[in-house]
Amino acid sequence: MRGYERALARIVGKDNVSTDKAELFCYSFDASIHTSAPNVVVRPSNTKEVSEIVRYANRKQIPIVPRGAGTALCGHSLAWNGGIVLDMTRMNHISETHVEDLYVVVGPGIVYSTLNAALKPLGFFFPPEPGSADVCTIGGMVAVNASGTKAIKYGATRDYVLGLEVVLSNGTILKTGSRTIKNSSGYQLCRLFTGSEGTLGVITEVTLKVAPLPTYSSTAIVAYDDLQAAGRTVADLIRCRLLPAALEIMDRTCIQAVNKSLKLGLPEVEGILIVEFDGHPDAVRDDMRKAEGICRAENPTLFSSSDDPAEEERIWAGRKAVLPSMSRLKGGAVSVSVAEDMIVPISNIPKLIGAISRIAKKRGLVIGTYGHCGDGNLHTKVLFDVRKKDAWTRAWKACLEIYGKCISLGGSLAGEHGIGYTRAPFMRMEHKAELDLMRTIKMALDPNNIMNPGKLSLDSVPKTFVTRLRYPVGD
Amino acid sequence: MRGYERALARIVGKDNVSTDKAELFCYSFDASIHTSAPNVVVRPSNTKEVSEIVRYANRKQIPIVPRGAGTALCGHSLAWNGGIVLDMTRMNHISETHVEDLYVVVGPGIVYSTLNAALKPLGFFFPPEPGSADVCTIGGMVAVNASGTKAIKYGATRDYVLGLEVVLSNGTILKTGSRTIKNSSGYQLCRLFTGSEGTLGVITEVTLKVAPLPTYSSTAIVAYDDLQAAGRTVADLIRCRLLPAALEIMDRTCIQAVNKSLKLGLPEVEGILIVEFDGHPDAVRDDMRKAEGICRAENPTLFSSSDDPAEEERIWAGRKAVLPSMSRLKGGAVSVSVAEDMIVPISNIPKLIGAISRIAKKRGLVIGTYGHCGDGNLHTKVLFDVRKKDAWTRAWKACLEIYGKCISLGGSLAGEHGIGYTRAPFMRMEHKAELDLMRTIKMALDPNNIMNPGKLSLDSVPKTFVTRLRYPVGD
Repeated sequence: MRGYERALARIVGKDNVSTDKAELFCYSFDASIHTSAPNVVVRPSNTKEVSEIVRYANRKQIPIVPRGAGTALCGHSLAWNGGIVLDMTRMNHISETHVEDLYVVVGPGIVYSTLNAALKPLGFFFPPEPGSADVCTIGGMVAVNASGTKAIKYGATRDYVLGLEVVLSNGTILKTGSRTIKNSSGYQLCRLFTGSEGTLGVITEVTLKVAPLPTYSSTAIVAYDDLQAAGRTVADLIRCRLLPAALEIMDRTCIQAVNKSLKLGLPEVEGILIVEFDGHPDAVRDDMRKAEGICRAENPTLFSSSDDPAEEERIWAGRKAVLPSMSRLKGGAVSVSVAEDMIVPISNIPKLIGAISRIAKKRGLVIGTYGHCGDGNLHTKVLFDVRKKDAWTRAWKACLEIYGKCISLGGSLAGEHGIGYTRAPFMRMEHKAELDLMRTIKMALDPNNIMNPGKLSLDSVPKTFVTRLRYPVGD
Repeated sequence: MRGYERALARIVGKDNVSTDKAELFCYSFDASIHTSAPNVVVRPSNTKEVSEIVRYANRKQIPIVPRGAGTALCGHSLAWNGGIVLDMTRMNHISETHVEDLYVVVGPGIVYSTLNAALKPLGFFFPPEPGSADVCTIGGMVAVNASGTKAIKYGATRDYVLGLEVVLSNGTILKTGSRTIKNSSGYQLCRLFTGSEGTLGVITEVTLKVAPLPTYSSTAIVAYDDLQAAGRTVADLIRCRLLPAALEIMDRTCIQAVNKSLKLGLPEVEGILIVEFDGHPDAVRDDMRKAEGICRAENPTLFSSSDDPAEEERIWAGRKAVLPSMSRLKGGAVSVSVAEDMIVPISNIPKLIGAISRIAKKRGLVIGTYGHCGDGNLHTKVLFDVRKKDAWTRAWKACLEIYGKCISLGGSLAGEHGIGYTRAPFMRMEHKAELDLMRTIKMALDPNNIMNPGKLSLDSVPKTFVTRLRYPVGD
């Protein structure tokens, strides 16, 4: 047993420390293109343990990488230069539920769906609904300021974080924020930690605002022969003051992937929109009627809406299958996340979609585009043979072009997935003095740079994609 | 002309620099108990000028105090140790309006109501509605994370700040955030600047999210003989998943003050609630029906609701008159803001109201309590003869007790007015490691401490109320 193993075992017990090779291998992956193994995995069960681990790591200058479910798409939870992975999944408690005060207090390791299952009988929920809702943890969502299909109406995680307990790099246990739905008592530090990707401290408890759960909804699927028309419809809906609970888009590549994988028989058009309204039944029906008029003005080949929950689920099944289906589209090619989370002002969606399609053609890549067009957030999956160096080079160039276009349209590198390691090389394209200030704050809070180093372009910046993808490529 | 006057006049022109005694006197007040004059007032018209002024001030180590309309209740915009007051009201432009993208870009000096008047024809609005809506500036609202009657449903200013342009203490012009309604690209710095009360930089441009303006509302007035019953009703409404657009409370002292001042003939009961719903007419009517049932369970002496805008305005007139009416209640006494913005978890409202009433009696003070009980935010006005030293001592002791109770109930010093100078002595009661971290960040961003020094308990901390109130006390 190595010295650091013994020291960590004294804090959490030896069953919660592992340097087993097979186990370290599991922790060397997340949902990104990267792999990198930690030296040791530690599973704390409470804040005091986290504080002692961090204090030890700070003294020894060992990197600390907090990890929830490992669903991050950009390498957030990988120990890039070795060190300690802090598996937070044992801290998955709901310590307080106060729906009459509109908040809950939870451990960072609780799974999103588990929390909402507990809130459902009370008629409340935590609205941001990421694609990984059934596995991702609340701590991870706070770390990257995650959101999902409901952000257009309900906002992102940052809008729900009322308070945090955070262990700082020197082991100090910080309580920040409040148990009230608004607050004006000093710097809003809990909103600084939200989205800081584990680089400023380890989140050990989260006080979240909750919202009344809507009891009625209606969902429409709208198919267009022209992707630009679909994009224009999105801005038209909002200009007419309709605020759907969800407003999604899928392009032909995604539709084909889903049909191939699930045989859903979606119309293979240029673009499909999914529009959902929730709330009072009369309000939802009126909004859906108005939305139908606006959608039909752009000549869709299909508009079909339903308030039957089974039918709504069928409509959503196609959208939710995009991510897992993409890798099945083309034999020998794997779908990877490289520029998968751009966000632009809503009315610029048609321009960004057009640009992505032109760049894909130019670089000889297959790129599927989908996502939360209602808030301007587009996801893409790039498909290529990951064993070929040349394909990586083309993907890199495509990313530079896509991000350049996105930023020139007033957009941002990431809407909800964060920066992590994958997007670190592009940070300077978007952030000028802002990146310097991020680094100043990082230095002030974590002078030894032990908190999740290598991420967010705060220290070293990779010059290209550093990938170690080796897994077999099937069809 | 002094050297600094000449230097500043070179930047903004001599018409926009003043050291005139009468003018400095005007800038020595805000809505707080304090007065303190700057050495010079400067009125910049653009970001470049602000940057040059700050660069000059940093070189000479002269304090810089940004000021909007001067409506702050805690001395935020007073130059506590002299220095430059930066009057931002010339920078009152709306530079971009993109309701189809759900955002506007404005100068910090624009008045809240002016912005909403411009948005109204488009069917949108910026929801937080402070009591000073007709005069306060957006820059000031961002600086203190202000809100108002609509926060329970619509959130506070922090939930609407998408992007900021800020001049840092060294003169750097920082662009932070985005033009998208969500964002996950690095530290959420615009949410750190929101609520930082001018201590980290000067806000020179604000990108704000806007929301569709509701077209229908209904408002109820509910009177209770028992203030605790009124308080319980608030938590009951929320537990039953009703989310009013506004949910306000006024106690007997406030009701009497308003009746004396405006002759509105409000029922002189222990507590009045005002409940407003907005949205789709059917949803509003259903919610109001449910709310009536919940309100009646606590035996009110009056429940009266209306969707006639004129009648709704009459109901609101009483509530809106509280602040200006209080000083007229008792001859020789002035109503002052000393502990006027406590916030607690919503269901603790009855306990806080009870405690404030006991403390008032014990300390021989008249304290009127009102505010946004729907989000747990209570305002108080303390009435006493401000020429008497003993009364100040009793007010100080009452504050210590009120804040102690508020914090023991899981609350916070300030819901929407900020800390400023008045509340600085109490910061340590609420914030432990958090205050140290605020100071670390302040030091990192403003090493010469030129940005609004003396506020937020970041440097010097007064030991008691420092007031220089000298104005005549009428009846």
